[in-house]
Amino acid sequence: MIFEIHKHLLEDCHVINSDNKRIVLLNKNALIPWIILVPNTHKDWFDLDRGFQESLVLESNTAADFLKKYFSINKLNFASIGNIVPQLHLHIIGRKENDACWPKPVWGNLKDFRPYTDEELKLITDSFRKFIS
Amino acid sequence: MIFEIHKHLLEDCHVINSDNKRIVLLNKNALIPWIILVPNTHKDWFDLDRGFQESLVLESNTAADFLKKYFSINKLNFASIGNIVPQLHLHIIGRKENDACWPKPVWGNLKDFRPYTDEELKLITDSFRKFIS
Repeated sequence: MIFEIHKHLLEDCHVINSDNKRIVLLNKNALIPWIILVPNTHKDWFDLDRGFQESLVLESNTAADFLKKYFSINKLNFASIGNIVPQLHLHIIGRKENDACWPKPVWGNLKDFRPYTDEELKLITDSFRKFIS
Repeated sequence: MIFEIHKHLLEDCHVINSDNKRIVLLNKNALIPWIILVPNTHKDWFDLDRGFQESLVLESNTAADFLKKYFSINKLNFASIGNIVPQLHLHIIGRKENDACWPKPVWGNLKDFRPYTDEELKLITDSFRKFIS
């Protein structure tokens, strides 16, 4: 990995893009289209300077736009929590009214699991990289 | 109320400040210091234009600074979810490692309840208004 990332994040997610400023993850559970943006910082959201927050809002918007388009999503959740994994990571989560834990928040409420197929994962990864380029 | 606000928000929270651009709420459960910022908009977070997002990040930062100072908080959660209450509202939540539902997110996991006393509520409200002025 280009910079160090918490093992729980790597266990739960696929890496779909990375450079020295951020790693973009996709939660392994295909039941919910769920991107996690991990910026290269040791600070928490409210401790970042304004410019850094601004850049992360823009990157989150782009991830949200990708989810909207790729997964036909109209509703998204956005969060910085980090109680268990202290490393800053921003959740950008596509929700649908018939999804696996609607209307509950995903954390702790997503009981079922379906993995992405290799083909699905490759398509999402390629599409995301094309989308942001 | 200066603009219309979802009844669930009003049921769950005290209004600690309001004008025609935003209403600032304090969750009624004194076990977790929890501010909810309700901007005057019909759009969701990722559908806002950049300037509006920017202003809300700044206001969230101020609310976070207040929680840090007033409640001696070092860790905060930040979220826009809105699966049950579709009206945009931003959660700024002060967390401690010994709080009532640590390390779980607050939503759905805060089983205990303690109301603010009238005196506590007045002090918080006055302090918040002074803090932002």
